[in-house]
Amino acid sequence: MDTAFQHRRRALARLFHESRIDSLLVTHPANWFYLTGFTGESGALVISKKGATLVTDGRFVVQAKEETKGVRVREQKGSAFESAAQALREAKARRVGFDPVHMMVSQLQMARKASKGRLEWIPAPGIVEALRARKDLGELAQMRKAAILAGEIVELAIGLLKPGVCERDVGAEIEYQMRKRGASGPAFETIVAFGNRAALPHARPTAKRLRKNELVVLDLGVILGHYCSDITRTVFVGRAPKRIQTWYKAVLQAHGAAISTVREGVSCGEVDAAARRVLEGHGLAHLFVHSTGHGLGLEVHEDPRVAKGQARRLEPGNVITIEPGVYAEGIGGIRIEDDVAVHAGRTEVLTRAPRHLIEL
Amino acid sequence: MDTAFQHRRRALARLFHESRIDSLLVTHPANWFYLTGFTGESGALVISKKGATLVTDGRFVVQAKEETKGVRVREQKGSAFESAAQALREAKARRVGFDPVHMMVSQLQMARKASKGRLEWIPAPGIVEALRARKDLGELAQMRKAAILAGEIVELAIGLLKPGVCERDVGAEIEYQMRKRGASGPAFETIVAFGNRAALPHARPTAKRLRKNELVVLDLGVILGHYCSDITRTVFVGRAPKRIQTWYKAVLQAHGAAISTVREGVSCGEVDAAARRVLEGHGLAHLFVHSTGHGLGLEVHEDPRVAKGQARRLEPGNVITIEPGVYAEGIGGIRIEDDVAVHAGRTEVLTRAPRHLIEL
Repeated sequence: MDTAFQHRRRALARLFHESRIDSLLVTHPANWFYLTGFTGESGALVISKKGATLVTDGRFVVQAKEETKGVRVREQKGSAFESAAQALREAKARRVGFDPVHMMVSQLQMARKASKGRLEWIPAPGIVEALRARKDLGELAQMRKAAILAGEIVELAIGLLKPGVCERDVGAEIEYQMRKRGASGPAFETIVAFGNRAALPHARPTAKRLRKNELVVLDLGVILGHYCSDITRTVFVGRAPKRIQTWYKAVLQAHGAAISTVREGVSCGEVDAAARRVLEGHGLAHLFVHSTGHGLGLEVHEDPRVAKGQARRLEPGNVITIEPGVYAEGIGGIRIEDDVAVHAGRTEVLTRAPRHLIEL
Repeated sequence: MDTAFQHRRRALARLFHESRIDSLLVTHPANWFYLTGFTGESGALVISKKGATLVTDGRFVVQAKEETKGVRVREQKGSAFESAAQALREAKARRVGFDPVHMMVSQLQMARKASKGRLEWIPAPGIVEALRARKDLGELAQMRKAAILAGEIVELAIGLLKPGVCERDVGAEIEYQMRKRGASGPAFETIVAFGNRAALPHARPTAKRLRKNELVVLDLGVILGHYCSDITRTVFVGRAPKRIQTWYKAVLQAHGAAISTVREGVSCGEVDAAARRVLEGHGLAHLFVHSTGHGLGLEVHEDPRVAKGQARRLEPGNVITIEPGVYAEGIGGIRIEDDVAVHAGRTEVLTRAPRHLIEL
C-alpha cells in the first residue's frame, strides 16, 4: 500500500505539466518532509520522471533511509545543489522547476553551474505549498490534537499568573509542559507579555515580573506529530478598567465576525475585512496593526494568508488562524486567536479554551 | 558614547570600498541584530552614506524603536525589499551590496524591480559575517557565560539518566532548566539519543526509553544574552564493553589533538586534520562522518568552518567548537564537544564539564 508521502509525490507530479516543468528541485525542509517524511534539516529533494532522490550530507544519511520509502538517498558530494543537479542530469531532466521563495541566490548559482548547460531552471513558486494548503484527513486529525493540546496549555499557563512571576519563568513552564504532554516543541517562541510589553505583538519573554492591574498576552502553539497549533488568550490581573473591557469586547466581536465569515468559497480578504470592520465600528481599526490570520500546518505560517485584499478563496482542507488584536503603547495589547478548519459546507474551530475576559 | 552597535556599523562601512559598494542591504536577522540590536524576525536593514535605516512591518515597529539607537525605523509599505530599495534611492545609493547566501531569489527580484533601474545590485557575501567572526570583549564575556551554563546543564542532564526515562522527557527537562537559569532558549534542538539512536548525529528526542548497556549522546547549547554555546557528552549506562572504551579513548584523543592545534594563524583545515589523523590511527576515520567543528556566536553555526581542507586561518576573537565523533549503526555514537576561543597567543576552552567516559 502506498504511504501518504507517495500519494503526495504523485499528486505533485501531475502539476508539472501546468508549470511546464519535467522535474522539481525541493529546497524547503517542510516541503521535503511533506513529500518524503524526511525530518533532516539539510539537503535537497529532486522529483523527476525517474522518481524521488533525496540528497543530504553524512550526518543525515542513515536517518533519511530510515524515514523514507521509495526514495533514493544519495550522500552529497560538494553542496547539496551540485549533487541535486547531477541527479537531475542523470534523470534526463530538462526543465527543472525551483521555488524562488525558498532558494537563495547563491544556491541557484551553484545549481546552475553544476547543470553544465543541460538543465533549464524555471521559477515555479508555491507548487508544494498549494498541495499542503489542503490538508488530508490524517493531517486534520493530527492538527486537531495539536490544537487541543495548545488550549490545555494556555489554560494551565493562566493558572500560573500570580503577581511576582516573571515572563521568562512562565514561558519556560509552558514549553516544559508541552513536551511533557508529547509535543516535540513549541511551534514558535512562546509569547508571554505583561503590561506594557503586551503592546508588542511579538514580544519575547523577559525577566519582567507581573504586577496587579496589568494585561497579559499568552500566545503559544505546539508541534505535535509534526503539525502546528497556535492560540492566543489575553487576561487581566485584577478588575479590568472600563476601557479594557470595551476593547476586549470589540476584539472578541471582531474574532467572532471573522470566524462566522470563514467558509468554503469565501475570499481570505473578506474574512480579514469582517474583523477589521468590527474594530472600525469601535474606532479601533488603527490599533489593529497586523493581518487577521494565516494558514497553519507543518509550519506555523503557511498558505493561505488571511490579510487585507487577499482574493484567494478558502477551500476544504484549509486550516487558518483568526487572531484580531489591538495594541497601544502605555496600555498593552489584547489579542484572541483560534485555529479554524474549512470543510465542505462547514467550519470547525479546532482550539478549545474559554474566550471571555478572564480577570484574575 | 557610542554603543557597540554603532562601532560595528562604522567598521562595516570601512569595508565597503574594498567590495566596491556604497551601501549594503542586510537581510539576515543575526546580522541586523549584530549591527543594530534589533531582535525582530522580519525586516531589512539598509546601511548607506546616510546612516542606517531599518525597515520592518507593523508588528515590530515599536520594538525596533526601543531596541536601536541612531537608526531610522521605517514601517514597510509592501514588502521589506521594496521599502528598502526606496530608502536606498532616497540615500542616493548607486552600488548596493547584498549577500547571495542570505537573500532569496524572489527577494532579489523584488528589490531589483523596486530600484527602478537606479540601483546596481552587487553580490557581497559574508561582509558582516567576517566582522562577527572576531568577537569583541563584550561578546567573549557573554559567550563564556553561555558556555559555562551549557556545561552545568549537561552535568545536570547526566544525573537524569536512569533506565526507563525517555529521550523526550530528558530533552524537556534540559530545556526547562536552561530557561530557569536565564537562557532565552536552546541554541538548537537538544539532542538526547539513546542506544542505536546515537548513531544518528542529529537525532531528535523520541519516546524511546533508556535501557541498561546503552550509549547516550547529549548535545545541547543555550542562548544566553543572545550568544550560543554548544557542548556534547557521551555516557554509557552500565559497564562499557572493551570496544566502547577503546572508541571513546580514540575520540577523546582526537578531541585533545584538535584543541592542542587551535591557535592564531593555524588553518581550520589543520585543526580538522589533527582530529581526523588520530581517528585514522585507530582505524575509525570512516566512522567520523562530519567535520571537526564550526564557528559559534550569535548563531550556532557561523564562520569559521573547521572542516577538511579549509585554508582560512584562525584569528584572535574566533570561537569554534571541537567535536569529533564516531558513529556505527547497531552500536550508537560517541561524540565529545567543547567550545574554544582563540586569543592573541593563547587558546581558551570555554566549556567546563568532565570529559572522561562516565559509566552510570
